[in-house]
Amino acid sequence: MTDFPRRIALLGSTGSIGRQTLDVVRCFPEHFRVVALAARSNVSLLAQQVQEFAPMLTACFAGTPEIEQEAKQAIPGVVLGEEGLLAVATYPDVDIVVAATSGLMGLTPTLAAIKAGKTIALANKETLVMAGHLVMAAAQSEGVSILPVDSEHSAIWQCLRGENTAEINRLILTASGGPFRLATLDQLRAVTVEQALDHPTWSMGPKITVDSATLMNKGLEVLEAHWLFGIPYDRINVVVHPESIIHSMVEFVDGSLKMQASLPSMHLPIQDALSYPVRLNTNGTGLVSKLDWAEVARLNFETLDITRFPCFRLAFEAAKRGGTYPCVLVGADEEAVALFLAGKIGFLEIAKLIEAVLERHHPVAQPDVPAILEACTWARRTAQEFYEATYQRKIS
Amino acid sequence: MTDFPRRIALLGSTGSIGRQTLDVVRCFPEHFRVVALAARSNVSLLAQQVQEFAPMLTACFAGTPEIEQEAKQAIPGVVLGEEGLLAVATYPDVDIVVAATSGLMGLTPTLAAIKAGKTIALANKETLVMAGHLVMAAAQSEGVSILPVDSEHSAIWQCLRGENTAEINRLILTASGGPFRLATLDQLRAVTVEQALDHPTWSMGPKITVDSATLMNKGLEVLEAHWLFGIPYDRINVVVHPESIIHSMVEFVDGSLKMQASLPSMHLPIQDALSYPVRLNTNGTGLVSKLDWAEVARLNFETLDITRFPCFRLAFEAAKRGGTYPCVLVGADEEAVALFLAGKIGFLEIAKLIEAVLERHHPVAQPDVPAILEACTWARRTAQEFYEATYQRKIS
Repeated sequence: MTDFPRRIALLGSTGSIGRQTLDVVRCFPEHFRVVALAARSNVSLLAQQVQEFAPMLTACFAGTPEIEQEAKQAIPGVVLGEEGLLAVATYPDVDIVVAATSGLMGLTPTLAAIKAGKTIALANKETLVMAGHLVMAAAQSEGVSILPVDSEHSAIWQCLRGENTAEINRLILTASGGPFRLATLDQLRAVTVEQALDHPTWSMGPKITVDSATLMNKGLEVLEAHWLFGIPYDRINVVVHPESIIHSMVEFVDGSLKMQASLPSMHLPIQDALSYPVRLNTNGTGLVSKLDWAEVARLNFETLDITRFPCFRLAFEAAKRGGTYPCVLVGADEEAVALFLAGKIGFLEIAKLIEAVLERHHPVAQPDVPAILEACTWARRTAQEFYEATYQRKIS
Repeated sequence: MTDFPRRIALLGSTGSIGRQTLDVVRCFPEHFRVVALAARSNVSLLAQQVQEFAPMLTACFAGTPEIEQEAKQAIPGVVLGEEGLLAVATYPDVDIVVAATSGLMGLTPTLAAIKAGKTIALANKETLVMAGHLVMAAAQSEGVSILPVDSEHSAIWQCLRGENTAEINRLILTASGGPFRLATLDQLRAVTVEQALDHPTWSMGPKITVDSATLMNKGLEVLEAHWLFGIPYDRINVVVHPESIIHSMVEFVDGSLKMQASLPSMHLPIQDALSYPVRLNTNGTGLVSKLDWAEVARLNFETLDITRFPCFRLAFEAAKRGGTYPCVLVGADEEAVALFLAGKIGFLEIAKLIEAVLERHHPVAQPDVPAILEACTWARRTAQEFYEATYQRKIS
């Protein structure tokens, strides 16, 4: 696919990645057309986006009657609920579906978009974490490309252009280390929600920002890399690189390493997925600033201390166990992070709660979509129950 | 060209790159065969190499009767002089010619090898610096690939795989900064030959080691990059990176940067040129050590201070002036470095001598081979005359 303009359907248009996708479209009006938009609950922003981009189809999939009512009034013709989300994902006059909904929400529409033959620009990592085996198999059988919209995976993908994946020795994901890279266990115990939401290099939504602080996000990225590039887990490493300038690396069998770098920016991986294999010139757009090596001066690398960041270890273990374990990881993490953000559990309890849920799980091998969603729902419920039985009782 | 074994002719087999090329062949006996060898004057080592690799053709191009006599006794059937060098460069049963002679010596045989349809693994940078317009035009008309055997250019070449060169924004060559990166002008004035030959990250022959200390080598690499990749000089930058881990970078128009890294080793760029587009597995060979990021810990970047390293500026100016100026640069530099190595001029006089010769030059545009060699010879003679008139007089 090299022809422009490309017609885009955007799932999750009011979230962080969704808004930045629209920044890219705004910068390159000759290259991209927004044909369909779907958002969950930010109706006022969605209505503004409809005004600006005039999509053929708009969906609001909040699932609550109040928001649906608001959406119907603000956006004539809006399609509601999962039906709307699926309609956007499979809208006929679309080349690329940007899957930027958060959490579990992305799986069903992404699979539907693949079956409809759309190129997928995938920003939702849970989709691959939970259902990598289904997504990659569907993509292969439909001849559909899954293009990463995540700085680390975009880096690896760029480093692999023109290379033979059979010649990969290791993938090395870089991790900023998050806001608590240097924190002691005692300091981690006392972390507040505000501290966890203050990421040193990346500006993102609250869930992923907490996942970055616990390094769960890096663990999920290991699973994502495994599925996207077909590399076994024991050949995917993580190195801490606080500046977030080098976004990831590929080591080849000959000992050569390739790395991709830029100032921290999601606009770049979004744009690269949308315009692939073409690179669009951002000179003068203000979208992506060029690196100035006199300013960069120094890049640091450290080993990842998994004793202080048990969520990373849990993700890696769930990955190696496979089956529904990664689904349980995702479900339990969603619940645990929500409890942390609500001030109900401490920062270190996030990992404890997830580990307790994983320990209680009876896995299913090669799960289908219902089994995936069921495992995930079970994990959320079990996390909630464990919270009520353990932490809530202590507090009351 | 993907079939193995590949048949190799090696020009300059007893030099630093030549010996390391043979290390690579030794490691991958299934992949490479040494079919022809040419060396200048190290007859005893050449004879050993003939014993070990049993080439079909061997040449010694010393040009002195004593060494030729020694070669004839030690190596039955050896072909002497430029005739021998050209015979090796154009030997029929050869796929790749590794051009690893130093200095001016490389130009004629490299052009002959191109005309004979050989793939060129080019380690001799003077060839492109002086005659880039002829070499690249010949390579294009013969459909021959010129593959870089220089860590910086190999890095750029690797970063460009699968990319569109029209989407390059800048090439960024890294420079270790050499042994005098932090030296003051006063300290540079007092530099000894021993200090100049003690390079912090690379082990190379004496001429190129001094060129690295003056940063002339980096200047020559800018010219080499210009010709290899067809990028204008104002879009080729140099950044000082003392660790020599990142060997160079490519910045694309979208703001994305790709870089290639490894521990400092010439085995890797040699191997990558010989086996391209295949990457051979060096695990367990001891040839190329993998990078350990826990050990690397930190990569530094600095701007290049051209006031302390005028040779870099001279190279860049000669490049922009074009014509025979780069030939004069090369010739004057060869003479100046020889004078420095002989203890006849100081370290800072190298640049002064080269600049004096460049100032006296009347250039020829688009020079052919005779004009190139003449400009170079003129530069050597003029450098010698300038030395005699200026420095020798002072000393005597």
